[in-house]
Amino acid sequence: MNKIEICLSPELIHLHDLKGKIVVVVDIFRATSTMVTGLANKVKSITPVAGLEACRAMKEKGYIIAGERNGQTAAGFELGNSPLSYLNNAFEDKKIAVTTTNGTLTIEKSKKDAAEVLIGAFLNLKATADYLIQQGKDVVIHCAGWKGMFNLEDSLYAGALVNVLAGHFGYDCDGAIAMKALYEQHQDDLKDFLSQASHAKRLQNHNIEADIDFCLTLDKFDFIAKLQGEALVKVDLQVV
Amino acid sequence: MNKIEICLSPELIHLHDLKGKIVVVVDIFRATSTMVTGLANKVKSITPVAGLEACRAMKEKGYIIAGERNGQTAAGFELGNSPLSYLNNAFEDKKIAVTTTNGTLTIEKSKKDAAEVLIGAFLNLKATADYLIQQGKDVVIHCAGWKGMFNLEDSLYAGALVNVLAGHFGYDCDGAIAMKALYEQHQDDLKDFLSQASHAKRLQNHNIEADIDFCLTLDKFDFIAKLQGEALVKVDLQVV
Repeated sequence: MNKIEICLSPELIHLHDLKGKIVVVVDIFRATSTMVTGLANKVKSITPVAGLEACRAMKEKGYIIAGERNGQTAAGFELGNSPLSYLNNAFEDKKIAVTTTNGTLTIEKSKKDAAEVLIGAFLNLKATADYLIQQGKDVVIHCAGWKGMFNLEDSLYAGALVNVLAGHFGYDCDGAIAMKALYEQHQDDLKDFLSQASHAKRLQNHNIEADIDFCLTLDKFDFIAKLQGEALVKVDLQVV
Repeated sequence: MNKIEICLSPELIHLHDLKGKIVVVVDIFRATSTMVTGLANKVKSITPVAGLEACRAMKEKGYIIAGERNGQTAAGFELGNSPLSYLNNAFEDKKIAVTTTNGTLTIEKSKKDAAEVLIGAFLNLKATADYLIQQGKDVVIHCAGWKGMFNLEDSLYAGALVNVLAGHFGYDCDGAIAMKALYEQHQDDLKDFLSQASHAKRLQNHNIEADIDFCLTLDKFDFIAKLQGEALVKVDLQVV
């Protein structure tokens, strides 16, 4: 039986052996939720870039550049980090380059050694789970956290994914046991529970309540988002 | 109102500002539970030492040396890491030097900048909480984990301490919110819940079921264990 582990922060990823495994990167508020939404809305590809300068330079190459630091659109960027910006196919067929406080760094740190890197969100939880079951490889769920610290929303997503996969995968890592239990306890009051958390509080301060609601929507989309080369692309499950 | 934070692994402690704060180090299975038990059983002092060689060298200075790596007594050491070894005042008035896989390193990493370092265990949870309330300083609960990884028993202790302190301290760190919720969910089936966890499984393999039961006993002792200079000593609450 294949196994699932959870890595609760990119500061701990060096403790995990990623060789031959599928890494699922999650940054619920909001990087990976926004990326999945962009791909659902016909964006051609999304290239995660760890640094602000490197991302800015992508504009010259014909990319739309999206940049966020500390929850705000970074200076000189065309787009911030809201999933709602991508609705109604607003950037159809465009190539996006994106840098965020936590999510893009976490993707960068996941690439080394992993067999595949996916990004995950509540928005495509079931599709991601179905794909992982198909592939039959060990899985590491890599939570972006907040500046290296544990955060609640990414860990709850990890718990939700373990919950869905529990019949198909073994999990004996303590993080997986803890977060599965916490998700099962709070799956029906996820938003209320998260409203205590520090990151949700930060987001409320920026008046993005609507983003939070959107990011917590379960299974709105039925594809996976996968890193191919340097860019994330949409992969429909039936053509996997 | 003073605040509590949780640090889930010594690999994350650099993200916390310890200045002026009281750090409570916890390694439930078994370092800090064993230290508290030793002090309750009239050991004079316990000096945590991060390395095996440095600890061995303490024998020359008249210390009883205790050494554990990966759950087993380390070669050449007089004592391992079982709290039961210290019962019945077996080492009354002795000075102990101890090195363990996770706990002693975590104490070492806590000393820098902190106003005070305590060690915590379920065995003296209420006494530790009472002391923290008296002191009126911010608190960081520093979980030893397992080789840098999150572990369940230390995190549940952290959640238990936040639970007891919740009326007296603020807590807006996500780790504190998560672990308090998880402890509240499982406080009445703590041993069953932990029996799923990787570290408890490791301990079961070493036939130390009795150690587990002992380490999960709540409020058996009513003193705090505090680092004074290089050594942990027993401090009775009434004379604080």
